[in-house]
Amino acid sequence: MTPEQAYQQLLQRAKEIAYLGTAQGVLGWDQEVNMPRNGAQWRAEMQSYLSGQLHRKATDPEINDLLAAVEESDLVANPLSDEAVNVREWRREYDRATKLPTEFVERFTRVVVLSQQVWAEARAKADFSIFAPNLGEIIELTKQKAEYLGYEDKPYDALLDGFEPGEKTENVKRVFTALREELAPFLQEIMASSTQPDPSIVEDRDYPVERQRILGEVASAGFGLNYESSRLDVSTHPFSTNLGPGDQRITTRFNPRNFNDSFFSILHETGHALYEQNLPAEHFGTPRGEAASLGIHESQSRTWENLVGRSRAFWAYFFPITRQFFPKTLADVSMEDFYFAVNAVKPGFIRVDADEVTYNLHIMLRFEIEQAIINEGLPVEEIPAMWNTLFKEYLGLDVPDDSKGVLQDVHWSHGMIGYFPTYALGNLYGAQFFAQAKADIPGLEEAFARGEFLPLLDWLRQHIHQHGMRYRAYDLVEVVTGEPLSHEPLMAHLRAKYGELYRL
Amino acid sequence: MTPEQAYQQLLQRAKEIAYLGTAQGVLGWDQEVNMPRNGAQWRAEMQSYLSGQLHRKATDPEINDLLAAVEESDLVANPLSDEAVNVREWRREYDRATKLPTEFVERFTRVVVLSQQVWAEARAKADFSIFAPNLGEIIELTKQKAEYLGYEDKPYDALLDGFEPGEKTENVKRVFTALREELAPFLQEIMASSTQPDPSIVEDRDYPVERQRILGEVASAGFGLNYESSRLDVSTHPFSTNLGPGDQRITTRFNPRNFNDSFFSILHETGHALYEQNLPAEHFGTPRGEAASLGIHESQSRTWENLVGRSRAFWAYFFPITRQFFPKTLADVSMEDFYFAVNAVKPGFIRVDADEVTYNLHIMLRFEIEQAIINEGLPVEEIPAMWNTLFKEYLGLDVPDDSKGVLQDVHWSHGMIGYFPTYALGNLYGAQFFAQAKADIPGLEEAFARGEFLPLLDWLRQHIHQHGMRYRAYDLVEVVTGEPLSHEPLMAHLRAKYGELYRL
Repeated sequence: MTPEQAYQQLLQRAKEIAYLGTAQGVLGWDQEVNMPRNGAQWRAEMQSYLSGQLHRKATDPEINDLLAAVEESDLVANPLSDEAVNVREWRREYDRATKLPTEFVERFTRVVVLSQQVWAEARAKADFSIFAPNLGEIIELTKQKAEYLGYEDKPYDALLDGFEPGEKTENVKRVFTALREELAPFLQEIMASSTQPDPSIVEDRDYPVERQRILGEVASAGFGLNYESSRLDVSTHPFSTNLGPGDQRITTRFNPRNFNDSFFSILHETGHALYEQNLPAEHFGTPRGEAASLGIHESQSRTWENLVGRSRAFWAYFFPITRQFFPKTLADVSMEDFYFAVNAVKPGFIRVDADEVTYNLHIMLRFEIEQAIINEGLPVEEIPAMWNTLFKEYLGLDVPDDSKGVLQDVHWSHGMIGYFPTYALGNLYGAQFFAQAKADIPGLEEAFARGEFLPLLDWLRQHIHQHGMRYRAYDLVEVVTGEPLSHEPLMAHLRAKYGELYRL
Repeated sequence: MTPEQAYQQLLQRAKEIAYLGTAQGVLGWDQEVNMPRNGAQWRAEMQSYLSGQLHRKATDPEINDLLAAVEESDLVANPLSDEAVNVREWRREYDRATKLPTEFVERFTRVVVLSQQVWAEARAKADFSIFAPNLGEIIELTKQKAEYLGYEDKPYDALLDGFEPGEKTENVKRVFTALREELAPFLQEIMASSTQPDPSIVEDRDYPVERQRILGEVASAGFGLNYESSRLDVSTHPFSTNLGPGDQRITTRFNPRNFNDSFFSILHETGHALYEQNLPAEHFGTPRGEAASLGIHESQSRTWENLVGRSRAFWAYFFPITRQFFPKTLADVSMEDFYFAVNAVKPGFIRVDADEVTYNLHIMLRFEIEQAIINEGLPVEEIPAMWNTLFKEYLGLDVPDDSKGVLQDVHWSHGMIGYFPTYALGNLYGAQFFAQAKADIPGLEEAFARGEFLPLLDWLRQHIHQHGMRYRAYDLVEVVTGEPLSHEPLMAHLRAKYGELYRL
């Protein structure tokens, strides 16, 4: 077999995997958005069957032979060619998938499935001890997983790599630490300011749901989301999903008294969907047509949610429209009041409710704990104490109980250790890209005030989306901005914006 | 391998086929109800890939060996046992699927796919000659298909069997002819009556869509449709679909000036969904848990749409509710006027718009033409003339052009010859079952007038639904009513109901 023939076979296999993957995507979307409740059991069985089919396809030993037939050939001589990128990532996926013995994967899955209910009960009762045995088992299995996967430096690297390919614990630690050293005192300054917003404007007034929905669609369509390839629906937890070229959907949830909840979740999911919509469609189903990493994905959602959607320029354009939608509710509110209200900074216990300033501190705390667990053997029963100590240190609050602390996130009960850092990496990448976009496009933010967002989308398409997985995240940031990932662009953004708002 | 082991393997295979089949169902439902338009191409590829997977599974030669290991064993000694029913039907499916050579199936599929657009163009231009070459090719392939499948008496039997297992042309002809001989003159009597309804009451007044939707849900829930296992959505063409135990969905379309369109399509699809909801769930994915035939399926939809939903007793109960929903629209309308309007009889050109009396005549005409095509070699160019002659004879109308005549249905362009009879068989089976239910349950229809429909649903569940495919349709009617299928119950129903309405 020639390398070209082997590569064509790999492409065909990738396509079949993509068919099954997007079929699973449709089943998953339907489950969250439409499925009658009595359909749950069969749906779970269908999904499990399709997962098995997918896993079998992804771990077929013939893939190894096909990859071997290409890897040393001229076809992949240029490491930035489509072929080289695909082969590099297929190799990575295949190796990760086959390093774990099948019975280990099955055991891990069983433990995780059983842990869901236990975690939910523990959280409801605010009692970590209920969940501790399950978490202990998950941690032991996760450590074993790291050994199976292998690593050069720290075991945590092997886990991080599953969500942020090639990323290293030490590199994340370097940037996070630098950020925290500036962020924590900056948060203190903000809290001490005598200038404070009135968040009740956006969190406790009447915002009829149907109007919220339309306004969200107006904003997201303005950002460039193509609704001939998308739709907005309601689900318990907001998400975005790519169901094939021309079909990227987003969801939100509505609260008739809270504007922020749905509006910014719509902008957030719009950012994810814009990335997926603007990946090169001709490479759909291959790494060359896929997102570079979870961190880069999150950089896109955070860019549109925060750097655009929470900017003064955006609200200069969008507040008059918003007031047309809610004339009574906002009769006594100025654009400045509203802009300040959607940017209110307030340390709280719950990560998903956190503002732009405090959010990253929530992530750093989890990152520290995960490292302690995986690299330093922190005993499971000591996790709550570490959580509460760090929380006091980073955010200045005493955690009242475990449901508002260590039990709040679903991730660990799903066995997802190593995922959290991608959220903060997203904020960091987003700020660094955005600073570059502003440097490249004079008047970028002024254009927002006129409702013009396509210059930014074009820039993101050209510098980020079009590359798919061509570059690893940490290389992409250097290609695009000329610098490695740094805390400085994010810190500069926060200082400028919140310094002005809070008159520091 | 023991027969028991072989049977267990067949059950496992059936389950995997059911997972793939219901996954396709979800993709299909989503396509009709939700999919953004740009998702169409990838969705078609996904569906085609899953179809291929399904076909491969269904034609795996190992199935033949497994069936052979069971077929002569004690496990299937009782032909009405679950095992015997499943093995009988699996054998039938396997043989039908493997009798057709793969390249023949692929050729047929290609021709049919290409014919869709040609048929649509021909219909739009009302010009049969545009579609004639494609239809000719479809007919030749269909004749060849009949030869591959084999038959004892007429080639048409092989086609009919694909939709109505085991049914014979001669048997259908016997019942249809007897029905037509009474129905055609009865229609003349109706048309000649001086008592006529005012159909504009239900076809050309204001019926706000949202109110129509809720009213439709009220009626269907009253019939026993479990909305914890169902939902009602909008699609271009109404349909029902079974996406797994606990997930049977229906769709309709709304016209704000026409009450009939959506209301009776909701009741119709509710009838289909009630059948699927009440099949034995423990046998889901095996013939023992599937509908007996398309004809029996249609008997259920027609029962709830016509025998219940267009009955005087139903409207005695439901007209007051309907008037509450549309107080202005129906201010000047009595229950009797409304009941007469929803039962207006009027020969028309379009089958799907036909009333309870004329509908079967539309089917018989197609049945005659299909037999002439397949059994007697009617040349394709003579089909329109035969259509128009029979239409004049059966319905007394001169067909103005082919779009209102021979080109109106999508079925032939899809290669579905042999399907039409199941619609009229549904009406016949429905009437015969319903007569038996009335004999078995004193006061059945009087209960409708009090909004009590569960006695009928229970009866259908017990006598029809619970059996799945245990009996062939023509046997089921004998088991349930003690008589072979006859035109008499339907004719008696029509004479009684319309004789009274039109004062004959």
